[in-house]
Amino acid sequence: MQRMRAAILAVGSELLGPDRLESNSLLLVRTLRRYGVDVVRKSVVADVVRDIRRELTALLEDVDLVLVCGGLGPTADDVTREGVARAVGRTLIEDAAQLEVLRAKFAHFRMRMADTNLKQAEVIEGARVLPNPRGSAPGQLLEIPGKAAVFLFPGVTRELKGLMKTELEPWLEERTDGEEVETRVLRVACVGESTLEERILPAYDEFGREAVSVLASAGEIQVRVTAAGYAQERASRLESMTRRLRELIGDSVYSGEPDASLEQAVGGLLTRLGRTVVTAESCTGGLISQRLTAVPGSSSYFLGGVVTYSDQLKRELLGVPREVLEEHGAVSPEVVGWMASGAKKSLQADYALAVSGIAGPEGGTASKPVGLVYVGLAGEGDPEVKELRLPGDRDRVRWMASQWSLDLLRRELLRNDSDPGQVPGRG
Amino acid sequence: MQRMRAAILAVGSELLGPDRLESNSLLLVRTLRRYGVDVVRKSVVADVVRDIRRELTALLEDVDLVLVCGGLGPTADDVTREGVARAVGRTLIEDAAQLEVLRAKFAHFRMRMADTNLKQAEVIEGARVLPNPRGSAPGQLLEIPGKAAVFLFPGVTRELKGLMKTELEPWLEERTDGEEVETRVLRVACVGESTLEERILPAYDEFGREAVSVLASAGEIQVRVTAAGYAQERASRLESMTRRLRELIGDSVYSGEPDASLEQAVGGLLTRLGRTVVTAESCTGGLISQRLTAVPGSSSYFLGGVVTYSDQLKRELLGVPREVLEEHGAVSPEVVGWMASGAKKSLQADYALAVSGIAGPEGGTASKPVGLVYVGLAGEGDPEVKELRLPGDRDRVRWMASQWSLDLLRRELLRNDSDPGQVPGRG
Repeated sequence: MQRMRAAILAVGSELLGPDRLESNSLLLVRTLRRYGVDVVRKSVVADVVRDIRRELTALLEDVDLVLVCGGLGPTADDVTREGVARAVGRTLIEDAAQLEVLRAKFAHFRMRMADTNLKQAEVIEGARVLPNPRGSAPGQLLEIPGKAAVFLFPGVTRELKGLMKTELEPWLEERTDGEEVETRVLRVACVGESTLEERILPAYDEFGREAVSVLASAGEIQVRVTAAGYAQERASRLESMTRRLRELIGDSVYSGEPDASLEQAVGGLLTRLGRTVVTAESCTGGLISQRLTAVPGSSSYFLGGVVTYSDQLKRELLGVPREVLEEHGAVSPEVVGWMASGAKKSLQADYALAVSGIAGPEGGTASKPVGLVYVGLAGEGDPEVKELRLPGDRDRVRWMASQWSLDLLRRELLRNDSDPGQVPGRG
Repeated sequence: MQRMRAAILAVGSELLGPDRLESNSLLLVRTLRRYGVDVVRKSVVADVVRDIRRELTALLEDVDLVLVCGGLGPTADDVTREGVARAVGRTLIEDAAQLEVLRAKFAHFRMRMADTNLKQAEVIEGARVLPNPRGSAPGQLLEIPGKAAVFLFPGVTRELKGLMKTELEPWLEERTDGEEVETRVLRVACVGESTLEERILPAYDEFGREAVSVLASAGEIQVRVTAAGYAQERASRLESMTRRLRELIGDSVYSGEPDASLEQAVGGLLTRLGRTVVTAESCTGGLISQRLTAVPGSSSYFLGGVVTYSDQLKRELLGVPREVLEEHGAVSPEVVGWMASGAKKSLQADYALAVSGIAGPEGGTASKPVGLVYVGLAGEGDPEVKELRLPGDRDRVRWMASQWSLDLLRRELLRNDSDPGQVPGRG
């Protein structure tokens, strides 16, 4: 079978401006690749009927599949439906069922439906409506014999993701023969990129350079292994590669799930062990508690936290002694130790994470420069405190501090775990 | 003079993969806009002669200027020169002078020049060579009367930047007469896109549809106005358009700065008024305090906050009475009112924001569905509490709750402000 050729067309004048890059295509490419579909071109055009029509007319002759994203909203410049209809010489029809769905959605959220929303119920003659429960405009699929199939997707990433799962993947599955290219991801926290590269050097030789790739971001690395072929052969090859990589990298691997986050890994361990955690934050200002609670179901292990920006609140809410604050300053291992112990005691949890540091851009001194952060953990014994020197701007320093803090707890939980075989980070 | 229309074509198979986005176009767009050139499309094609030829053939008829980036290197898959030559029906000629430049470069770095490098001296018949001292392949400029002008640039950003300065800008300057284009942004919080569209409808008529554009994301809208012309006329036009839009939109406009955030606007008002704020969060889990403290210098007005996920901590840290929790439940206007008052009192600030809600995906009931959120504000009098019904997943509900909460405080601060002329949101 010849490989299917696809094109991605993003519609949106804002994507032609100086501030924003189209990025939905990365998601689409990932899925298409899995089904052995080649993406041969990507393009961005403005919210202009003529431009959409022109572009699509050319694509319809050149590729087998066109994925159009964006321009399905209710405003005057949402003209994707019209542009596509023109390219295939069809009309737009108001879909009664879709109109009902729209009305119901607005009623549910007690919002008045403006007249402009009516256009979101317009469907290209002959197209199939693709339900989009996450948004107001549905997707559409137009298949004309002898021409490329055309999917119309919303540009909102969350909605696009949903439609990829419910509509695009099943469609692709029907049209491919079971051979897939599959990628597995190991997520690694708080290891430098060059350190990691050194650790996995043997894997490059063993599996081939192109089977392994490394993608680094702040405080986080993704190691990806790829294998092609039919289900079983592919799975066993991926299995042996990831096993070997885990051996080489060690327990810095916190998950083997592509979309897992460090806070999910921590949450999984806390749930498994039946323990609870609280936080006491200064420079991270609530970022750690926000990350912990971003995980659905976190209320079973996260009790609460305090953000103590002022020294007064460090004393009153956490019981940090005035002398300790005066002698060592708020950014010190001593104060972070007290913050952790104080939070554990007054918020009554098994573990307490504490952070204090200088996130910048102001507030640094020669002895306590911007990027100096202490992260602390109070558990059973004395609190453990780590000193960090973090590069980058305020956002990056805060983010890295939250990574190290969560990883401190993750490692402590791993050590206390009697059944490592079932730990998410090692599964 | 009619505005020039440009297209950007990036060549490179690696830009069609799942990990990398083409980003040179942002630089190009910025420069082109300044000279009043509209970028009407961007595309990415693979390193394939046929694809480059096809794409360029279409563009030559459609736009006035094509900027091609990438594929000028020495390797077998660097075929941009060939693809462009085919599109215009010309041959490639080995340029003797360019060959000399290449040889000299290699000699300078004491490297042997491989035969494959010879292709970097190939120039499209009739094209002008654009010297590229930062790399080995020069750029090229092809001008054919009656067709679009075509620039060939290297894909390496550093080299591209150099050629933009030395070749593209002077070329644009010659073709424009000092007229430039400028954009201003109004940032708007907590208004629906269609409501906003209705409010600004008169502006579309008054300024023309294309002068105003709307970019919506969760709980946040950017309204952009654009004006072309000479410096003074442009500035006064932008001034009167933004003034009119502020009139139409009202005090939902929180800033006229393109990169401003709601938390910055709130921080600006708190600083101006010399007031302090604390937070008491449940479903947002620290997101509000994290956002407030993301602003450099926030320690002067943000004292701290508590995240009370458990009922016990709502009682102990905020003094919410047990009877109120039992009678109304944690997600209720009553509890949020108590949380706000309790936080204001025990954390000793001028204002306290409180939030409680059901972020989902679990925990919803018929009477209290996922997305039901109460945001509260304690200031001078009785606490003010607002009920929200927020659509979307957990992340979105939490984000929207933080937006509404910050906006509640912003509006209260605006009301208390005696000098509205200087408020950031109205400047």
